[in-house]
Amino acid sequence: MRSFITFITDFGYTDHFVGVMKGVILGINPAVRIIDISHQIDSQDIREAAFVLKLAYRYFPKNTIHVVVVDPGVGSGRRPIVVVTPDYYFIGPDNGVFSYIYKEEGSIKVVEISAEHYYLQSPGSTFHGRDIFAPVAGWLSRGIEANNFGLEMEDFARLEPSEPEIKEGLIVGRIIHIDKFGNLITDIEKHHIEELIKKTGKKQVEVKVKDLVIPNLSKYYSQIGRGLPGALINSDGYLEIYCYLGSTRELLKVAKGEEVGVIAE
Amino acid sequence: MRSFITFITDFGYTDHFVGVMKGVILGINPAVRIIDISHQIDSQDIREAAFVLKLAYRYFPKNTIHVVVVDPGVGSGRRPIVVVTPDYYFIGPDNGVFSYIYKEEGSIKVVEISAEHYYLQSPGSTFHGRDIFAPVAGWLSRGIEANNFGLEMEDFARLEPSEPEIKEGLIVGRIIHIDKFGNLITDIEKHHIEELIKKTGKKQVEVKVKDLVIPNLSKYYSQIGRGLPGALINSDGYLEIYCYLGSTRELLKVAKGEEVGVIAE
Amino acid sequence: MRSFITFITDFGYTDHFVGVMKGVILGINPAVRIIDISHQIDSQDIREAAFVLKLAYRYFPKNTIHVVVVDPGVGSGRRPIVVVTPDYYFIGPDNGVFSYIYKEEGSIKVVEISAEHYYLQSPGSTFHGRDIFAPVAGWLSRGIEANNFGLEMEDFARLEPSEPEIKEGLIVGRIIHIDKFGNLITDIEKHHIEELIKKTGKKQVEVKVKDLVIPNLSKYYSQIGRGLPGALINSDGYLEIYCYLGSTRELLKVAKGEEVGVIAE
Repeated sequence: MRSFITFITDFGYTDHFVGVMKGVILGINPAVRIIDISHQIDSQDIREAAFVLKLAYRYFPKNTIHVVVVDPGVGSGRRPIVVVTPDYYFIGPDNGVFSYIYKEEGSIKVVEISAEHYYLQSPGSTFHGRDIFAPVAGWLSRGIEANNFGLEMEDFARLEPSEPEIKEGLIVGRIIHIDKFGNLITDIEKHHIEELIKKTGKKQVEVKVKDLVIPNLSKYYSQIGRGLPGALINSDGYLEIYCYLGSTRELLKVAKGEEVGVIAE
Repeated sequence: MRSFITFITDFGYTDHFVGVMKGVILGINPAVRIIDISHQIDSQDIREAAFVLKLAYRYFPKNTIHVVVVDPGVGSGRRPIVVVTPDYYFIGPDNGVFSYIYKEEGSIKVVEISAEHYYLQSPGSTFHGRDIFAPVAGWLSRGIEANNFGLEMEDFARLEPSEPEIKEGLIVGRIIHIDKFGNLITDIEKHHIEELIKKTGKKQVEVKVKDLVIPNLSKYYSQIGRGLPGALINSDGYLEIYCYLGSTRELLKVAKGEEVGVIAE
Repeated sequence: MRSFITFITDFGYTDHFVGVMKGVILGINPAVRIIDISHQIDSQDIREAAFVLKLAYRYFPKNTIHVVVVDPGVGSGRRPIVVVTPDYYFIGPDNGVFSYIYKEEGSIKVVEISAEHYYLQSPGSTFHGRDIFAPVAGWLSRGIEANNFGLEMEDFARLEPSEPEIKEGLIVGRIIHIDKFGNLITDIEKHHIEELIKKTGKKQVEVKVKDLVIPNLSKYYSQIGRGLPGALINSDGYLEIYCYLGSTRELLKVAKGEEVGVIAE
């Protein structure tokens, strides 16, 4: 019934961390299947993990358990939680990493994990991925209900997801993610641009980032020449600035947080 | 029957791309198993992906479905295809990434994927891995035959695989791949060297790359001293230049494309 | 019965190496499940692989087969082996990579793999991961007993695991691993520190590395301020030097092998 567990962490691929979490889960439920979404979230970058989760979670079968461990507060007072939505389960620290889920899913239940008999014994408190989140994911996948792990709570942490500012004939957003290709993903969504066009009655939009002006949107990457910059609405519905057969990150020397403007033309 | 799907992409391990493709496939066929071959093909390097596929595909069980997504032309007119050979299936863009398959497999059928009811709906056209290749792989693994995805085609794209030049007593090849250890893999194969030795009646070969001369072939890496360069026929049957306990890439400061000479001595 | 195989290698994630090993195993036993622990062991670093294996192996279900391929001597006289302990199997080269297993497991049997009919034929001898270790893992997982692969041997290679020096009121250890976050893991274990405290009657310990003095141990990472260095006993029971929300590797410019002192205060 709950056949799949996914992982998003900042644990990387070098250490034993991810393998050990899988070992613990398979010891509890040998039949469950585990899918890695990413283990290369920037270290301790909760917002990055939250965004990658947002882009991924809905593409998995119903009842998938999504485990997210980006957890700078591990071992401190921050609480481990299970989040239950109509279609999915989420397990991780209560540090805002599920903020997009809280925003997008109508009905949510958040349970604080406190039933320590599910935990692994450990000489330290630096690896709750192995000692708390993995066993809870394993038992949840075997049919133990969320309520068995602890009490429902209401005061869970939320991070306000990045949102663009809508001005007169202008959208001011930010780069919130840079992908493997060096493409810049902004917090400006397709509907923001459609609304701008509707409101202004213009037909085109111009995109600005740093000194670069892109006069209009492409439909696909190879529509422009090699090494040239372009902008398009990507398949996740976000405005993305790219460079055909090149890296925009390197071309523009930009980082996450940089402002991006969209002007109706 | 079709129990395994493999992936070769340039998507890296940071973003949601690979996980999402797996989610889509498992939503269609929860029983299929997915094996990552590589997601670190150099961005947009079709030849690299083609070569890695060539080295890998035959080691998988019959009826394995190999999905290759290195796809700079995504969203443009380039066609998505399924290639059927007696033992395997291949899914990816029609950009030459299957050129070694076309050369090595006697009997092939190439189908253009055009049956859009198998596609996922998407706000953009930048992620056919998720929206076309993954669902087609999922349905193919469930037994849907290739012909259901579209019509057979003949004019598929081919890249001429790199081949060494055979001269009088001399082979001139190129570095076509550099592996994780910094070893240089050339397009010179075991049979090229055997033929050179046979034709010239010599017993040894000398290998030249840049200013370096390697006087004969090793049988295994540790046959020479630490940090020294050597050459051997590797387990894929290619001439490989290595440096024992070191990186030849760094030692010689070479890149793919560099010439390599083999002389009978 | 033997349902799981794990991998620890220095093969990286770029080449066909890991995927091909999985293909070979699944061709022999399509039902077995393969879990990656790490493929990013530093190239040819046998001690690193041995340590990662030590931290991981016990978290897997009984009868798991752990395959470790960090193998600079591949193709030379070094022997391929199967190690049998009461709960696990280990497959890899006889180069000391199983030294922690020999030390920790009471009862071990080591078999030299010599039954060549289990090997894959190969044009070279650079890839025993594919040609020897993967097929042996596959057949072992199907129930073939270790004795079928060759004769028991006694003279297997051991590396002495790094151990701290215990002096009067002082422990002198070394950094033996640096994790993805840049945390420094030492060979000083929880029990060493507990014994020091017991013997000296002091209550605190001070940790020294290079010019840095950490006056006492934290319980969890976020106990100190952003960017500051701290030390704690981690969840594997080792003394770890960290930097909250930063990389100690970069802060201190240290490498594996650096001395670390612990003084009772």
